[in-house]
Amino acid sequence: MKRKLRMGMVGGGPGAFIGDVHRRAARLNGDIELVAGVFGTDVAKSRECGKELFLDPARVYPDYKDMVAGEMKLPADERIDFVAVVTPNRMHYPISKAFLEGGFHVLCEKPISMSSKEAIDLKATLVKTGKLFALMHNYTGYPMVKQARQMVADGALGTVRKINVEYSLGWLAAPNAGKQASWRVTPSEAGISGCMADIGTHAQNLIHYVTGLDIVSLNADLATFVPGRALDDDGSVMLRFNNGARGVIFASEVATGEENNFVLKIYGDKAGLEWRQESPENLIFRTNDAPMQVYRRNWAGVGEAAKKASHLPAGHPEGFLEAFANIYRAFADAIIANLNGEKNPTGDFPGIEDGISEMRFLEALVKSSNTGQWVTM
Amino acid sequence: MKRKLRMGMVGGGPGAFIGDVHRRAARLNGDIELVAGVFGTDVAKSRECGKELFLDPARVYPDYKDMVAGEMKLPADERIDFVAVVTPNRMHYPISKAFLEGGFHVLCEKPISMSSKEAIDLKATLVKTGKLFALMHNYTGYPMVKQARQMVADGALGTVRKINVEYSLGWLAAPNAGKQASWRVTPSEAGISGCMADIGTHAQNLIHYVTGLDIVSLNADLATFVPGRALDDDGSVMLRFNNGARGVIFASEVATGEENNFVLKIYGDKAGLEWRQESPENLIFRTNDAPMQVYRRNWAGVGEAAKKASHLPAGHPEGFLEAFANIYRAFADAIIANLNGEKNPTGDFPGIEDGISEMRFLEALVKSSNTGQWVTM
Amino acid sequence: MKRKLRMGMVGGGPGAFIGDVHRRAARLNGDIELVAGVFGTDVAKSRECGKELFLDPARVYPDYKDMVAGEMKLPADERIDFVAVVTPNRMHYPISKAFLEGGFHVLCEKPISMSSKEAIDLKATLVKTGKLFALMHNYTGYPMVKQARQMVADGALGTVRKINVEYSLGWLAAPNAGKQASWRVTPSEAGISGCMADIGTHAQNLIHYVTGLDIVSLNADLATFVPGRALDDDGSVMLRFNNGARGVIFASEVATGEENNFVLKIYGDKAGLEWRQESPENLIFRTNDAPMQVYRRNWAGVGEAAKKASHLPAGHPEGFLEAFANIYRAFADAIIANLNGEKNPTGDFPGIEDGISEMRFLEALVKSSNTGQWVTM
Amino acid sequence: MKRKLRMGMVGGGPGAFIGDVHRRAARLNGDIELVAGVFGTDVAKSRECGKELFLDPARVYPDYKDMVAGEMKLPADERIDFVAVVTPNRMHYPISKAFLEGGFHVLCEKPISMSSKEAIDLKATLVKTGKLFALMHNYTGYPMVKQARQMVADGALGTVRKINVEYSLGWLAAPNAGKQASWRVTPSEAGISGCMADIGTHAQNLIHYVTGLDIVSLNADLATFVPGRALDDDGSVMLRFNNGARGVIFASEVATGEENNFVLKIYGDKAGLEWRQESPENLIFRTNDAPMQVYRRNWAGVGEAAKKASHLPAGHPEGFLEAFANIYRAFADAIIANLNGEKNPTGDFPGIEDGISEMRFLEALVKSSNTGQWVTM
Repeated sequence: MKRKLRMGMVGGGPGAFIGDVHRRAARLNGDIELVAGVFGTDVAKSRECGKELFLDPARVYPDYKDMVAGEMKLPADERIDFVAVVTPNRMHYPISKAFLEGGFHVLCEKPISMSSKEAIDLKATLVKTGKLFALMHNYTGYPMVKQARQMVADGALGTVRKINVEYSLGWLAAPNAGKQASWRVTPSEAGISGCMADIGTHAQNLIHYVTGLDIVSLNADLATFVPGRALDDDGSVMLRFNNGARGVIFASEVATGEENNFVLKIYGDKAGLEWRQESPENLIFRTNDAPMQVYRRNWAGVGEAAKKASHLPAGHPEGFLEAFANIYRAFADAIIANLNGEKNPTGDFPGIEDGISEMRFLEALVKSSNTGQWVTM
Repeated sequence: MKRKLRMGMVGGGPGAFIGDVHRRAARLNGDIELVAGVFGTDVAKSRECGKELFLDPARVYPDYKDMVAGEMKLPADERIDFVAVVTPNRMHYPISKAFLEGGFHVLCEKPISMSSKEAIDLKATLVKTGKLFALMHNYTGYPMVKQARQMVADGALGTVRKINVEYSLGWLAAPNAGKQASWRVTPSEAGISGCMADIGTHAQNLIHYVTGLDIVSLNADLATFVPGRALDDDGSVMLRFNNGARGVIFASEVATGEENNFVLKIYGDKAGLEWRQESPENLIFRTNDAPMQVYRRNWAGVGEAAKKASHLPAGHPEGFLEAFANIYRAFADAIIANLNGEKNPTGDFPGIEDGISEMRFLEALVKSSNTGQWVTM
Repeated sequence: MKRKLRMGMVGGGPGAFIGDVHRRAARLNGDIELVAGVFGTDVAKSRECGKELFLDPARVYPDYKDMVAGEMKLPADERIDFVAVVTPNRMHYPISKAFLEGGFHVLCEKPISMSSKEAIDLKATLVKTGKLFALMHNYTGYPMVKQARQMVADGALGTVRKINVEYSLGWLAAPNAGKQASWRVTPSEAGISGCMADIGTHAQNLIHYVTGLDIVSLNADLATFVPGRALDDDGSVMLRFNNGARGVIFASEVATGEENNFVLKIYGDKAGLEWRQESPENLIFRTNDAPMQVYRRNWAGVGEAAKKASHLPAGHPEGFLEAFANIYRAFADAIIANLNGEKNPTGDFPGIEDGISEMRFLEALVKSSNTGQWVTM
Repeated sequence: MKRKLRMGMVGGGPGAFIGDVHRRAARLNGDIELVAGVFGTDVAKSRECGKELFLDPARVYPDYKDMVAGEMKLPADERIDFVAVVTPNRMHYPISKAFLEGGFHVLCEKPISMSSKEAIDLKATLVKTGKLFALMHNYTGYPMVKQARQMVADGALGTVRKINVEYSLGWLAAPNAGKQASWRVTPSEAGISGCMADIGTHAQNLIHYVTGLDIVSLNADLATFVPGRALDDDGSVMLRFNNGARGVIFASEVATGEENNFVLKIYGDKAGLEWRQESPENLIFRTNDAPMQVYRRNWAGVGEAAKKASHLPAGHPEGFLEAFANIYRAFADAIIANLNGEKNPTGDFPGIEDGISEMRFLEALVKSSNTGQWVTM
């Protein structure tokens, strides 16, 4: 059985960057249709948004609880299959939990919650309900990230020794960076961390996705450069991994002039890899014994995982949206498998364990930065 | 009035690269729905394709004539608004003409036809029917191409003097490059030119789009490197423009190892511009009097046309598909305007004049290459 | 026998860019010492220049004839071994000839002369005198150019099909570009061509050096964009080679904002190569069957010729000067061999045949551009 | 008074990378002549080396003490003006001290000594002798580093907030990396640190040179990946600066496949800068309010310091050697000033304070890494 999936959305009203990205990504493969939603907390604006999306007004709900209740009442062949939760951090956990308990699969923005405790509780909800959950760490959707992962797994790098991740943006360099920015540095909306919750978690997740390694201890230095902010807008952290590798993540949202400069470098005893999100079609492979190689998306030499995640021929640039859409596609495939009777199908998308892990990472970061000490995970 | 547009497609069956691109691009903005089609000449495969696209089997037609007839019979609020023609070159003209005459708007792949005569006839059909026509020169859809155009128009380069365009692919370097390749070098399918019809026309079109200049004479050297091919797989051409500027296009499909290396460089008496399709987020601006500037999509300094064509923040890479989708969006906007009563609405998409111009360009190229002489347009 | 060579110079007075480059390049390897010269036509300035170079005032001569005469009178173990001729084009031939006839080896700037006739006469002088002659096509001195040459010779590209050379500078974009610029577009000083003599010859020479191919016919379009100039400041030319390959050179000195953008791209039926003078440490190698490779100077995978021409480890950038110095070193080695009794020693430096070839190239270019016809070489 | 300076060298025998670099750099400007030396500890090889350098055999000494004594005996217009000390770390201090006390100026490789105590003693020797001292932190010699320094000083970045430095090499990734490598990880030759002494000191020095900021506390994690090494071959360190800025240096000599990847990024509240040693001709300047700018060596927009340090026109690549030579030139100018009677002339070259600072940095690094604690400088 294969059919178009019906999707709902909570969050993503007018002006919200990420909600529109989710909608575009969900459309891309032609197998998902947005049919219901709550597009922000302003009911009138949400309705207007639904209208522009050609939705049935009856399925643009005042709030997420109404939506759960409303969709549960619909016939099985009309109600949504899953919901995308794209609100500020604070609401990720309660909304996800409510939809899961209502019988709906959930795809949620990162970070998963406000605490590891919430994340662990969400795991229990998943076990109880048997529903599926995806966490939107979109950068894992890039084909050349998948290529990196495969090369590490295949031993092309040998034993991984050093992992360096840079994640620099300039958008919070000035005090007033707009509504999208302000909630991210407000504890009641964002949680215990600002910059690190927003982008540091992507770094931690990407490292794990590509190398499979876990952080065993860390030493962090979080900073707040713009006066008046209650949370970090910058941070560095030194890492030790479970195989003995070391690493560093330095993330900043006050790196004036940077756009979305997310760079992963991994060195093993045989070779090194470099991937840059702003030039995502390249994966650079270096050894001491041969010329540098640049793997290009969908060009010769690229492995199965990257090819499957790739839609256009090499040289026809894909980008952020396609990576995003790959997460949607993998999640949709899992839902279809579930509809066809498979229990707890897995797939190439981040999930609950990534969520628990990212919250523990954030909690350790804050503790280390506050104490100046190494913290064991 | 705004509503989702209903789209049909002719061509783009299994394995056809460009058909899938059209479908994905059409989906991206959420205002177009594919509802009917003929997906290649193999009826069984076409049906299978329609099924995978979740189409009503009744609207997957045996051939394009059936489709015109079938759609004409449907109620006005069901039948397609426009058709996308994505077949080999030979069929562009007859299919476009049939749909126009059936009362449908048409978006057609380039090159528009097999001859300038056909293109001119198509223009007459447009005048007669009052329908709208878009020609898919997708590279004009890139935001930084629009930025280049605006900067030239604003005089940032001064008087344009020299235009250099490189367009190199390696995909036809070997004799057997697959079905997608073979029709492109077969005269009965492709027309009087191979490489130049396939990619040289993009170069000619992009120059005109960005600079507004017209070629007044040219001197070409077309080549066929792979034995057995009846058409050019490589070519160079020297150009003279109507403002006195000079230029060169060198295009090749036997440039082994190149992916889709399309580069535009324009020099005026004040400044120069460089755009590379494989790094489409950058537009490089150079003068003799100041540091090099790199305009980045949706970053500060970029003008209105580029911003409007941009969907994600800077640093979140957009690519080929978004450029493609911009053509669809502009054409959809024109159709909506037409539905709302506007006659012959225009928009930022290539059309019939581009088609006539590209055919005259191809005819001049072939004549010049055969005679070794300059040819006046 | 090995000893420091004694060098003289004609030209390269204050403000002359290339004279200082020659002096610095000659010093680099520690085996050449500048001991005599005529540094421009202004005798007082020349003397001042000699003083700043710590030269014996007795060996700073009023003009080149005095210098030939003066040096001939010195004891054999004092007089210069060779002279570097770095004047405007007009004087290359007479000065070179005078020194050769005086018994001195000559290293001369390009282009070798004002006509192929002069170049051919110079060859006769060489035969007669048995002296050595080097022509300063410095770009052939780059290690990664030598790597390209070796890879072509080793068959890594298969049969060469297409050669594209871009050479763009912006320095002559405005009418008054200074003294260094003005003589280059003055026929009495520069010869029959401006831009093409200045940089087009580099392109032609580099193609031959790397591929070994000869141009058999060409079709050129020279242009003069800045009013008042008597020679071309821009030009394009389509090329046909003796193995059936095609190519294009487009060169401009009015490409506003460009510094010294000299790019060589060669495509064979197996692979392609790309080298950019402004990033000279890289040689990009592309095939349809494997990831792109970037050969880096003195890194693993680089062959003997490139290694020998390289002095620093990879990642410690070498540049223009080291390439220049490699020509000096190869010429010095030949002189030492000659001092040790070897007749007509050769080496990895351009010489008289390159000079004759470049003059024939220029003459064909001008003829083709004037007639609009293909010219057979 | 201006004359050629006479230079001696200790170290830099056959196979030593850096000795040859020093000799070539010293030659480049034509105002320094190498006349004496001790080229390594093997006397026969040293003599052979002297011969190849065309030196008077009488001035190739058995060891540095003989050299001090021998040169002191020579007439004032024959003896060396200064010595370059290019041995392994252990000997930097005793040799420098001996030459200073013998009345010679000294240019010494980094790190200055084995301990801050030695460095402080050397400062006392300088005060006592009145001689001049330069420390070869060659990366400060790059024109675009000087441009960065000037832009920071001019306030183009506003208040500096974050400084990230990456310095990655792969040359020590394998256990047996040759003689040049082995002494660098041997405590008796290299001191208390391996990787950090070799390259971390460059990072610390460059930060100070460009920003003028001092580290007030740091937290380091040094690692030794290759078994059997007694010193770090990798390390990361988090930094706090005296103006409140934060930073990170991550350096590695086991970053397999990296050549000499030294990258400096500085972010202020107004703008950010990026410089990469492997592409040293560019300085990237980013703000949130305008397109990215790429300052190019000797192109328009570049300031006085960078211009003075530049020899060739933009687009004619300069590199490592020219940067090195700029340190020599500045030191030579100071010596000439001293010869002309100026006491303690300064210039744009690193000196004793840089040496003391780098030793304190190394000592703090090791202490922090051993204790896992922040260390205040």
